[in-house]
Amino acid sequence: MLKLFYAVGTCALASHIALEEAGAKYETVRLNFAEGDQRKPEYLKVNPKGRVPALIADHGILTETPAILAYIAQLYPKANLAPLDEPFAFARVQAFNSYLCSTAHVNHAHLGRGARWADEPTSLEDMKRKVPRNVTESFALMEREMVEGPWVMGSTYTICDPYLFTLEGWLPRDTVDIKQFPKIAEHNRRMMERPAVKKVMAEHQKA
Amino acid sequence: MLKLFYAVGTCALASHIALEEAGAKYETVRLNFAEGDQRKPEYLKVNPKGRVPALIADHGILTETPAILAYIAQLYPKANLAPLDEPFAFARVQAFNSYLCSTAHVNHAHLGRGARWADEPTSLEDMKRKVPRNVTESFALMEREMVEGPWVMGSTYTICDPYLFTLEGWLPRDTVDIKQFPKIAEHNRRMMERPAVKKVMAEHQKA
Repeated sequence: MLKLFYAVGTCALASHIALEEAGAKYETVRLNFAEGDQRKPEYLKVNPKGRVPALIADHGILTETPAILAYIAQLYPKANLAPLDEPFAFARVQAFNSYLCSTAHVNHAHLGRGARWADEPTSLEDMKRKVPRNVTESFALMEREMVEGPWVMGSTYTICDPYLFTLEGWLPRDTVDIKQFPKIAEHNRRMMERPAVKKVMAEHQKA
Repeated sequence: MLKLFYAVGTCALASHIALEEAGAKYETVRLNFAEGDQRKPEYLKVNPKGRVPALIADHGILTETPAILAYIAQLYPKANLAPLDEPFAFARVQAFNSYLCSTAHVNHAHLGRGARWADEPTSLEDMKRKVPRNVTESFALMEREMVEGPWVMGSTYTICDPYLFTLEGWLPRDTVDIKQFPKIAEHNRRMMERPAVKKVMAEHQKA
């Protein structure tokens, strides 16, 4: 059975929702980042990077959200979570998810994880100040150029949607108002209505 | 015909090498970042992000290195650049490339692109000082946990290899000595011997 390692408030939410949408048989392990679970030796055996998500699959362990999402789509083709037989359409899905992990997530990460890239308190404050501008820029670009609506890729729900939804959930912390982005605000509203999303969110909100 | 937009010294090198390895029919357009070509209106029509690579394909325009690499592998299956029929093996390829774009490239980017995430000169200096440590950490992790050798995925050359090679090429600027990482140093040496790599490097080194 698949086993997903996640922590509340992280991008592992995207993989969790995708597993639920796929109708996968899976179990979850919740890490507590506040207690440093991700740095403990038993977890570093699962994921030496000390990050989430990690997915234990039949053939081994996978990390990195875009890879896990595409794997779930391939493992459960009937759920139709990615255009697996259309290389260009699949590449567009991948390009979107790649933008999220390499640019949009990184823009957000400078809010609370600046110490990855600098040491001085003044630098971390400087980074924090720039986060709202950078996150706004990423979301404005997605609104204008990438998100087709109602779902990211248009009329069909894909693995891009839970991933975008995850970053939408960070906007309040980023002090960026989602209402500036009408398509994305509507996307967020529609996501909240999906049974799979409701179920996973309820689990993440449990104490 | 495929058309790749690249700039010298950027991660577009990976896609360029992959096209050459695939035996693709393609042409290239070189942007001069020093002259701000990537911000000019005609290029922003191709890629509104103002970054490279961008690939004009038959069905539209693709961006983001991991997406372009997987697309090239799918478009030229005879070149055997990714394990397309094995979802788990393909996911491992994707996980590696995703780590490069979201973590290893980002670590390097704080050397010359710190102004993306902070404004004060002191912050940019702070970021620069941390780059050698962060890049060393990324490469040590790849050496220890990810790179099988002789190629990233073991005995078969894949789309991971030109991407890793691209980041290897940044190590001198990062003031990180590749010799600390024996598998990766050997990987770099083998890459340099490949005719496709030689051809593309010669083009990038032209004035």
